[in-house]
Amino acid sequence: MAFLPAEIIKIKRNGGELKYEEISEFILGYARGQIPDYQMSALLMAIFFRGMNTEETLSLTKAMLHSGEVVDFSSVKEFKVDKHSTGGVGDKTSLILGPIVAAAGIPVPMISGRGLGHTGGTLDKLESIPGFNTQKSLPEFIELVHKHKICFIGQTKEICPADKKIYALRDVTATVESLPLICASIMSKKMAEGIDGLVLDVKFGSGAFMKTPVLAEELAVNLMAIAKGYGKKVTALLTNMDQPLGRYAGNSVEVEECVAIMKNEKFMGPAGYDLYEDTRELSLRLSAHMLLLAGVGKNEEESYKIAEDILVSGKAMAKFEELCSIHGGNLKALPKPKHSIEVKSDKAGWVGGFHTESIGVAGILIKAGRAQTTDIIAPTAGIEFHVKVGDEVNVGDTVFTLHGDDKDLLQSALPMLRSAMTISLQKTSKPSLILKTLS
Amino acid sequence: MAFLPAEIIKIKRNGGELKYEEISEFILGYARGQIPDYQMSALLMAIFFRGMNTEETLSLTKAMLHSGEVVDFSSVKEFKVDKHSTGGVGDKTSLILGPIVAAAGIPVPMISGRGLGHTGGTLDKLESIPGFNTQKSLPEFIELVHKHKICFIGQTKEICPADKKIYALRDVTATVESLPLICASIMSKKMAEGIDGLVLDVKFGSGAFMKTPVLAEELAVNLMAIAKGYGKKVTALLTNMDQPLGRYAGNSVEVEECVAIMKNEKFMGPAGYDLYEDTRELSLRLSAHMLLLAGVGKNEEESYKIAEDILVSGKAMAKFEELCSIHGGNLKALPKPKHSIEVKSDKAGWVGGFHTESIGVAGILIKAGRAQTTDIIAPTAGIEFHVKVGDEVNVGDTVFTLHGDDKDLLQSALPMLRSAMTISLQKTSKPSLILKTLS
Repeated sequence: MAFLPAEIIKIKRNGGELKYEEISEFILGYARGQIPDYQMSALLMAIFFRGMNTEETLSLTKAMLHSGEVVDFSSVKEFKVDKHSTGGVGDKTSLILGPIVAAAGIPVPMISGRGLGHTGGTLDKLESIPGFNTQKSLPEFIELVHKHKICFIGQTKEICPADKKIYALRDVTATVESLPLICASIMSKKMAEGIDGLVLDVKFGSGAFMKTPVLAEELAVNLMAIAKGYGKKVTALLTNMDQPLGRYAGNSVEVEECVAIMKNEKFMGPAGYDLYEDTRELSLRLSAHMLLLAGVGKNEEESYKIAEDILVSGKAMAKFEELCSIHGGNLKALPKPKHSIEVKSDKAGWVGGFHTESIGVAGILIKAGRAQTTDIIAPTAGIEFHVKVGDEVNVGDTVFTLHGDDKDLLQSALPMLRSAMTISLQKTSKPSLILKTLS
Repeated sequence: MAFLPAEIIKIKRNGGELKYEEISEFILGYARGQIPDYQMSALLMAIFFRGMNTEETLSLTKAMLHSGEVVDFSSVKEFKVDKHSTGGVGDKTSLILGPIVAAAGIPVPMISGRGLGHTGGTLDKLESIPGFNTQKSLPEFIELVHKHKICFIGQTKEICPADKKIYALRDVTATVESLPLICASIMSKKMAEGIDGLVLDVKFGSGAFMKTPVLAEELAVNLMAIAKGYGKKVTALLTNMDQPLGRYAGNSVEVEECVAIMKNEKFMGPAGYDLYEDTRELSLRLSAHMLLLAGVGKNEEESYKIAEDILVSGKAMAKFEELCSIHGGNLKALPKPKHSIEVKSDKAGWVGGFHTESIGVAGILIKAGRAQTTDIIAPTAGIEFHVKVGDEVNVGDTVFTLHGDDKDLLQSALPMLRSAMTISLQKTSKPSLILKTLS
């Protein structure tokens, strides 16, 4: 090696700037097993404290990207666009916006993740559809995107192997919460997708990784700088995750919600409005920005209109059914939960807020989510939300319903769920779903 | 384990204070192999950035100390005292002050180190005496200190095993230069010696770990706080390492210098003063403080007088000969270097300064020192200093002599050595050897 690993650690430790060659040699050396875990963890902690400038973060992203393959989409000539969300509870927009954008003729190559901790994963949701198989090789993936404009796969071992190894190490060395490390991890995987444009859904609030709008905006700006450094078109939306999105959080129940929205159904809650509305609106807004990046529509409102027409006309639903058949999924056989337990309010007033992360943890307790990557998901387990911030509730009103096949598991999550909502004695106002759009 | 290692790392990373139980469990878990290197290196880097307060440093020292044995000196009733030096070039005072203090009836249990990098090691110097064996068990060590008041051994595997493992990791993860880690490493080993008092020789200057008096004083204050936290008597001297100490740096040549001093010999240099003078003075001053801590002498000057009398009377030399016989060393057979190369000045003026660290590196090149712990020392290799800061030199004056058995090796060190001294066109002044005494 041209550089001594300990010297590279020392440069960053002392607040110096690392060159691309230094970062690249360290990352590739680590991916190949030539640099041991203990030197990588020391570098990660030094990065945690010293940070990285845009140039260094771009170098880190590039090095992680080049630890594996970049999907070769030379056979797909159209502008390819994807969306990345920083994760939330009930966040199911990919299942709606993917079909909308693909139905507009724009390829959407989706390399998605599985749920971990309090946030869900798109692959887990899709796999609750019996037969739905996301295990495809990269050549199959490329071919399906070419033919159907849409395909969902998981991170394959060819894509960013360094990221996988580094992420596992960060998890056990208290080096997760570092902006450049977060940015490089997200963007190396997105840049490996071979896309031309990216819409970022950066969430803030009690159920988001970034708790405040200011922190979310800082993350968004850094992610966008990397995308732009790669010459990609990029837009970021800062969206509210102070409460779960939509009617359900879970897997098969979220698929049910998406299908209902794509079938133009509504589900009126006790407060007299459609509980699917926020999921529908965010999916359309993100679709609009994806279409706009791809040149479909002249401005956001025109692109939004195109997206809405595709949804209302049933073309999105048709594309979703096509997607299911590509992946071998039998949507008609979508399982329904066998049991449910209602959670009633013991107070009267207005919904003040949710501890959204606690709802995510309740989801883990009923096996709708995972505490560890090796945990197995119960497909039908989920939580239904009957009210949202700003709604009035009376004593005895149903506020949540727990769904699933295992009654005892559902019971075990009750205390966590009960503590996850606050009722205010004064009228509360409804927060905006989308705070800001950055481009 | 009661604590998750990643949580302990996180507390320190976030600037929190670690409790004794947390530090202890982490250190002992690491020593036992239950906590992996990568978590320890992340914690070390977090400590590098966040530091540790006195309480935490004391906890770290205690945890490292309790990873092994503490020497049980209950059989030696007298006040036991040792000296620790932070390391320098030509620093050979242990070989003189040990015999002086032991000859005064005060036990000196010396657990010493080997040379690494540009600083020499006491054990390497003693082992240049044919037959001198420092490999003794702890019970033998205790018995010899009891009987002869002095014995030299190396760090055994029973003493502070956690320190040995952590030090090796710090070396390759850029976490050496951390005050709490340095302090805990030094003091855990010293506290394991079972001593009652400690004199610290904290060096500053171009050949020292701490380059400035301010940094050296900070280190001294922190080391003293730990000793006091253990209820030990402690004094620290801040001493100059802007030039090598005495006439020689090496191994057998340093023994020769010490023997000459203990035989009351002088070696007049070209500038008209005794080149042994600084070694003699520092040895006596440190001896005086060791005696003072042990209650021998009412004040520093009285203790100094007692030390000087022991030296002048030949009692120190007799104790050194006794020491050699304890360890099986044949002092009469001390080898002499077969070759020497003189280095002459190509400038006229006054000696302005030394790059003392470069002299240490030249010492490594001729195998008087080690670059790596596995390197083998050439016992007779050494560097002789003919002039010191403030001396006048003319073109062609001999300023250094390289000694050793391998002519080619000596030649290889010439450029490094030539660059290690600066000649000033203006008169320079002689620096004070001892800057400050802290107690």
